[in-house]
Amino acid sequence: MKRARVAYAGAIHEAVPHHQGVQLADGRVATEDAVVWLPPFEVGTIIALGLNYADHAKELSFGAQEEPLAFLKGPGGVIGHRGVTRRPAGVKFMHYECELAVVIGKEARKVRRETAMEHVAGYTVANDYAIRDYLENWYRPNLRVKNRDGGTVLGPWFVDAADVGEEVALQMRTLVNGQVTQEGNTRDFVFDIPYLIEYLSAFMTLSPGDVILTGTPEGVVDVKTGDEVICEIEGIGRLMNTIAGDEIFGR
Amino acid sequence: MKRARVAYAGAIHEAVPHHQGVQLADGRVATEDAVVWLPPFEVGTIIALGLNYADHAKELSFGAQEEPLAFLKGPGGVIGHRGVTRRPAGVKFMHYECELAVVIGKEARKVRRETAMEHVAGYTVANDYAIRDYLENWYRPNLRVKNRDGGTVLGPWFVDAADVGEEVALQMRTLVNGQVTQEGNTRDFVFDIPYLIEYLSAFMTLSPGDVILTGTPEGVVDVKTGDEVICEIEGIGRLMNTIAGDEIFGR
Repeated sequence: MKRARVAYAGAIHEAVPHHQGVQLADGRVATEDAVVWLPPFEVGTIIALGLNYADHAKELSFGAQEEPLAFLKGPGGVIGHRGVTRRPAGVKFMHYECELAVVIGKEARKVRRETAMEHVAGYTVANDYAIRDYLENWYRPNLRVKNRDGGTVLGPWFVDAADVGEEVALQMRTLVNGQVTQEGNTRDFVFDIPYLIEYLSAFMTLSPGDVILTGTPEGVVDVKTGDEVICEIEGIGRLMNTIAGDEIFGR
Repeated sequence: MKRARVAYAGAIHEAVPHHQGVQLADGRVATEDAVVWLPPFEVGTIIALGLNYADHAKELSFGAQEEPLAFLKGPGGVIGHRGVTRRPAGVKFMHYECELAVVIGKEARKVRRETAMEHVAGYTVANDYAIRDYLENWYRPNLRVKNRDGGTVLGPWFVDAADVGEEVALQMRTLVNGQVTQEGNTRDFVFDIPYLIEYLSAFMTLSPGDVILTGTPEGVVDVKTGDEVICEIEGIGRLMNTIAGDEIFGR
């Protein structure tokens, strides 16, 4: 089952797909552009993976890694489908990153990979923007790269884990202004979902609503003010957002 | 004014200091060890600073930095005063880090340093543990270093900003089993509080309950299972916790 959270006519509603757009729990139907799409679940701690596809790591001139390169993103930066992400003034590299987002449904602590998938509630599509100009060649990240307002786009649908099954091999692609710029498949993860849940839950408890952004494949390109970016994952959804300028007090 | 959040007799209470321990809003008095100390405010996004004291950066063999080295910590890892933090099996370097925690009280977005202090609600003491064995010499952090369950200790008191004033020059020290191991003063910040609020709010909105851990001075040493660690900051509080083992499925 797929469901969304949308704001419509003065309230927030759960919604399901309808051939004219979305259908609310009370039966009302609205078109896709008549609602405001919120992130499709209450977002807890966001864990993001870097370099989790070998082709993308190579594209950024990194070699193989021995353990997951995981970092956090703040919930304050999250927006939903059809939201707006701002390009800072004067930067050269604003990269989208199409990623499968894994949503935790059951508390996970020191879980083994054999039972890890029992802790997954479902999936959504993420676009995990990065401003590469701000990446320090240092031992820790710079929040300016990855933790900007509007820099984490999630949605449109939350898809139940049961609809995907245990073998997660989903085709994914990104389109910028209608042109395909990135293609991949989640079968090419360096560290797969059971491994990531085992790894993370060994030292931090994963709680319902926590979300793992599993990394992006090869094909990141710079996006400009005015661009429309669509991240698609097979069976999960088609997440669109647009790039606006941010000329005031850029940083 | 100082206040804490404590669990006592089946409920969570706000509490103020009392010469016998704490006093609840309804007048009841309890001793310090008769209550469970929770983090003294509802914790939002946690932003932590690395290398924000020159002496500590030197201690870790880093030079001066051009901009704040900021990263996030997840709220799931937070515990309060008198809590227990686990030392992973087989590691060599588990370091406490005594830090002044700055709590945001008013939404901050693109704020200038001149008015930044208006956005501070108050302060508490933080102990921001790090397992240095897990630090990759790479361009992004490893969550195993800094985002462990129980790895962020906050409390015991939330102290109103008005009680501290605009000039934040507070003596701080850490004691391990009663021996002073770390001393510093917040006047020695590389990047001071107004700068950090201007810097962060330029690209990410700071909301009430968000907290900035401002970094630690020189003097981090390894702590072992059984140690009692006290982080003290002048006028803010005396935060105690103990180290326990974590022999099951260490990582």
